[in-house]
Amino acid sequence: MTSQHAEKLAALRLQLRKHGLGGYLIPRSDEHLGEYVPASAARLAFISGFTGSAGLAIVLSDKAAVFSDGRYTLQLQAETDRDLWERQHLTEHPPEAWLQANAAGLKIGYDPMLVSAAFLRKFDHCNMEAVAENLVDAIWLDRPAPPMTPAVALDEMFTGAASESKRARLAADLRSNGQDAALLTDPASLAWLFNIRGEDIEFTPLALGFAILYADASAKIFMAPEKMPAPTRIHLGNQVTVNSRETMAAALAELQGKTVRYDGDTMPVWFQTTLVAAGAKISAGPDPVSLPRACKNATEQAGTRTAHIRDGVAMARFLAWLAGAAPSGAETEISAAAQLLAFRSLGERFKGESFPAISGAGEHGAIIHYRVSPESNRPIKANEVYLIDSGAQYLDGTTDITRTVWTGPGPAPADIKAPFTRVLAGHIALAEAVFPAGTTGAQLDSLARAALWQAGLDYDHGTGHGVGSYLSVHEGPTGISKTARPVPLQPGMILSNEPGYYLENAYGIRLENLILVQPAAFPDTKQKFLHFETITLAPFDRALIEPALLSSTAIGWLNVYHAKVRLMLAAHLDPVNDAKTLAWLAQATQPI
Amino acid sequence: MTSQHAEKLAALRLQLRKHGLGGYLIPRSDEHLGEYVPASAARLAFISGFTGSAGLAIVLSDKAAVFSDGRYTLQLQAETDRDLWERQHLTEHPPEAWLQANAAGLKIGYDPMLVSAAFLRKFDHCNMEAVAENLVDAIWLDRPAPPMTPAVALDEMFTGAASESKRARLAADLRSNGQDAALLTDPASLAWLFNIRGEDIEFTPLALGFAILYADASAKIFMAPEKMPAPTRIHLGNQVTVNSRETMAAALAELQGKTVRYDGDTMPVWFQTTLVAAGAKISAGPDPVSLPRACKNATEQAGTRTAHIRDGVAMARFLAWLAGAAPSGAETEISAAAQLLAFRSLGERFKGESFPAISGAGEHGAIIHYRVSPESNRPIKANEVYLIDSGAQYLDGTTDITRTVWTGPGPAPADIKAPFTRVLAGHIALAEAVFPAGTTGAQLDSLARAALWQAGLDYDHGTGHGVGSYLSVHEGPTGISKTARPVPLQPGMILSNEPGYYLENAYGIRLENLILVQPAAFPDTKQKFLHFETITLAPFDRALIEPALLSSTAIGWLNVYHAKVRLMLAAHLDPVNDAKTLAWLAQATQPI
Repeated sequence: MTSQHAEKLAALRLQLRKHGLGGYLIPRSDEHLGEYVPASAARLAFISGFTGSAGLAIVLSDKAAVFSDGRYTLQLQAETDRDLWERQHLTEHPPEAWLQANAAGLKIGYDPMLVSAAFLRKFDHCNMEAVAENLVDAIWLDRPAPPMTPAVALDEMFTGAASESKRARLAADLRSNGQDAALLTDPASLAWLFNIRGEDIEFTPLALGFAILYADASAKIFMAPEKMPAPTRIHLGNQVTVNSRETMAAALAELQGKTVRYDGDTMPVWFQTTLVAAGAKISAGPDPVSLPRACKNATEQAGTRTAHIRDGVAMARFLAWLAGAAPSGAETEISAAAQLLAFRSLGERFKGESFPAISGAGEHGAIIHYRVSPESNRPIKANEVYLIDSGAQYLDGTTDITRTVWTGPGPAPADIKAPFTRVLAGHIALAEAVFPAGTTGAQLDSLARAALWQAGLDYDHGTGHGVGSYLSVHEGPTGISKTARPVPLQPGMILSNEPGYYLENAYGIRLENLILVQPAAFPDTKQKFLHFETITLAPFDRALIEPALLSSTAIGWLNVYHAKVRLMLAAHLDPVNDAKTLAWLAQATQPI
Repeated sequence: MTSQHAEKLAALRLQLRKHGLGGYLIPRSDEHLGEYVPASAARLAFISGFTGSAGLAIVLSDKAAVFSDGRYTLQLQAETDRDLWERQHLTEHPPEAWLQANAAGLKIGYDPMLVSAAFLRKFDHCNMEAVAENLVDAIWLDRPAPPMTPAVALDEMFTGAASESKRARLAADLRSNGQDAALLTDPASLAWLFNIRGEDIEFTPLALGFAILYADASAKIFMAPEKMPAPTRIHLGNQVTVNSRETMAAALAELQGKTVRYDGDTMPVWFQTTLVAAGAKISAGPDPVSLPRACKNATEQAGTRTAHIRDGVAMARFLAWLAGAAPSGAETEISAAAQLLAFRSLGERFKGESFPAISGAGEHGAIIHYRVSPESNRPIKANEVYLIDSGAQYLDGTTDITRTVWTGPGPAPADIKAPFTRVLAGHIALAEAVFPAGTTGAQLDSLARAALWQAGLDYDHGTGHGVGSYLSVHEGPTGISKTARPVPLQPGMILSNEPGYYLENAYGIRLENLILVQPAAFPDTKQKFLHFETITLAPFDRALIEPALLSSTAIGWLNVYHAKVRLMLAAHLDPVNDAKTLAWLAQATQPI
């Protein structure tokens, strides 16, 4: 590893000299600034060896540093060479401070397609210079080709609205804002707006590309034309043209004198620079798809409910299987995750996992973003806590569920049942919350934590994230967390409800269902209220529940939920082939 | 009224011409930008007739407008002349938009001592001009003299810390921030820092003045020297000089080349302009007193506990008296408030009310900021809801309490008991909350609302405000409300806990105790947790409680609280003279 990465650094430093730069900045993200990147854009991993999902490298002529956050402290140490790289914490020792200390005044190059204007603002005090050519690509001789999977149409029976009507609605919004066009740089926005899906990256069904939506509801997609088979082009219709990536700058130049909506927080700064140079007027505003995509229509809501029945059936078969298999100690974190995937694969419309399953036995459950590998894999033992956080992509919906179980056969100890029940109490408090329209996720976050707080416990992650409809399992623009996000919760939004508790080196507890925001009906009230419909269907492990720690309303919620789980799933299980699962389900959903 | 205000407007318009202005802006606040103003600074009331606590007038040569918020819609109509004034809503039709529509391009004058830089920023698009002379004062022939009450020392037995040590602590903070001096423009900051109190305005024991605190812990107070009797000067010591208001500009000029802490949100813009003109460097930062003042020391905490016993005794006598008097219908909103004040006046160290009591029977209770007047006064009738929100200033603490009672003698109807109990459930949920250090009030706000939200109910005000120690009953820098304030809750802070519910034209419910932030001890946890100690002592009306709507932990909290109220207050009531109160107290605090 060492010599290979040393050679890469030497080659990149030659590029620095060639371009008259003192340093170069390599972010983790690709030009869509999203969570997952294809192999062709894994530049941070190529140059440094670090494969985590958040990070950044800076290479100077005489030193280099690679940054990531607390989730990846150990992985950063393991994957990068200490002789070549300073390993730093993104927020505790941020790159902008590192540059000030180590490269004051030096010209630092960056690729303007890979950073947002908001990101760049942190480096205001530095001497930053956009470089048109990507210097990592210049030295990356065996760089994989960009993904070339076909974009295919997603049927209206799943999307519930034709692209034409979506574009008409968004175009009307542009016109009412005095905007002539909007940029779309998030492939999930293209997927939603044009009702297309692809397989360019793992876990999220995206076809990578950009688009411009015009105020007359026409649009230009910028994507390799060979990714658009004839049926997809027919599906797109006459108002949408498919153009090669290379024509994008020219299309932006045609916006001279026009007002273009652009989000400096989420879009590459290259678009801003190019538009301004072309004489277009920038109108700051969020991606116009972001909010409508989050508010699922009736078809998408119905789809996700049926997808969750299939996912619940897989979970029931898995949990029943695990209840039988776990006490023997013969299964491992990897084999259990594989078994769950096998059960899911039987489901109609199943397309794959929505993220790499977190399968953590005992102390591994306490690693919040644990990803089991052949090296870390360990048996699931008798009488311990096992946590599995997983999800699937179905044509009609995306799922994400976490269950924490006691493997038995002995009874769970009281000191584990207590925090488990407090996590459950928080989960239920959020699930049964009613709240006025206009409320943000940040305002509800404490409801999920209060029961843990009462015992001096907490969890160091958000309570919930948005979830797409056969799209990204992490979707904006809202969330439920301590950090305030300005967009209020609105009907049709799907979020996760996943409080947890983690005892380092011992165990992890997380209980996650997806919840759908719905109007709440109060005949006597003028003010509009909302509530959550829980759409995930799987029992919570009764062996870990201490009823004395739940309020009577919480016990009532749990019993009603379990009865619903039994009713909904049993109807989809086969009396003969699923006899064991049915027997397990009947027992697992008994009232408390 | 009409002709008098027409004459004033005519006189002011002469001033506009004299100064070459197209208009003039008259805010409600005085030069301390606080909540209450002395009669000498009631310029908005003088010019417009409007006496509410929030507002603003703009006078042009041909028209004039006066703005206030939703609390004062009716009062604004009643107190101002429609022939002279457009009456507008501060946020729905903000003054900056009104100016743009009615005075585009015109030069608008303002007094830079009466507005903050942040306020002025809203008028960036207008042609605003600072005018040294206040034009209202120029035409205010019978303007009252500024208050001249003496500033007196507050004993260390109440403050718990000498001014010298407070100044040393704040000066160290200035030095560590590289600041040479800090401005103090809030009289409550002077009161805390120098351990002085005055009687310049109603309800809050302030001596109006300004100060500069220097990084060597010395200070200059700017206040009429005749307000500083010899004992106070001796108390202040050699490091603090008292200077006339007229010397303040010169003292600021001496800061040439120095770095001065200044808060553009809360301080008059005049200070910024003057400092910049003098060649001083502005360092943006909050009033350095604001946070230490909010975190009460052990002496102040002990003081407020004993003040709350005295206040609780007065409340118990009042509520016992009311229980006997109310069913007859012979008492009124005014007579009841007077009776409560009479009971409070018997208390040791009592100095006055901390704000005008809100005494609202029936439908008046639904007016959140109701202030009873001889015109609005009405009898308190049998079998209705009566709300009283009041507080007192004691030398050792400030109180603020709201109770809502059923006047009887009949039983309270179920449709009033239900919302009352939900308000109580929210009050208790907040009172018994435990939360990690770093949590803000906004994060806890929903705990107080969740029980109401469940029934489609809410209240349109904050849940809690900071309370001073023998100081302002509304004190920063924290609060508990939907609106996020960045400063987290910290040990020693005193806040109100006052959820409510209001049914227009029918009744109002509000239940308010003061709560004191305390560390919570969890031996096994590394993370620091906090909780609230409830310091207000008075029963909640059991006649309005529906126990089925309370959780068992909430009932437990209530019974423990009532037992504590009985124990603490009975010890301070006289078995003979207070026999009736004691009997009432025993009944009112029975467990549920």
